[in-house]
Amino acid sequence: MVVVYVIVVYDVSVERVDKVRIFLKQYLNWMQNSVLEGEVTKARLKEIELGVEEIIEKKEDSVIIYTVRDEALVNRRFIGEPKVEPTNIL
Amino acid sequence: MVVVYVIVVYDVSVERVDKVRIFLKQYLNWMQNSVLEGEVTKARLKEIELGVEEIIEKKEDSVIIYTVRDEALVNRRFIGEPKVEPTNIL
Repeated sequence: MVVVYVIVVYDVSVERVDKVRIFLKQYLNWMQNSVLEGEVTKARLKEIELGVEEIIEKKEDSVIIYTVRDEALVNRRFIGEPKVEPTNIL
Repeated sequence: MVVVYVIVVYDVSVERVDKVRIFLKQYLNWMQNSVLEGEVTKARLKEIELGVEEIIEKKEDSVIIYTVRDEALVNRRFIGEPKVEPTNIL
């Protein structure tokens, strides 16, 4: 089973921001406001891409999905406090 | 000269957001609201880290600096329209 390491950064309109975050949290770990990460299979990555395409308005929103073969290829440095994850109040 | 490929994602208070973006744009290319990328030397990366540390309020803001050895290790997919870069009105 081929896995990849995924970093998703989204910039979506406030009406859709909770929906995008909640969708992505099914697959990935919340890292920062608008950033999630995690290891997923290629099949799951496809689900993520299709799900995001369904939720967002392509004319208004923008999502970048970075993938690398292995998390070990990525070095990550935090500056400042990792913010508290927003609660899913709907 | 050792270079690395850098992706910076920031989540900073609105009072400092222009300052952070303008600082980072000296070194990196704007990709999306709160995301910049580029190839820099390790010396430049250190400058970026120190500059960010100086500008942000560590208790309120959060910046993640991802680095990989080579841009070719990263796959990037955009969903939606890349937003227009904010103008630097100060």
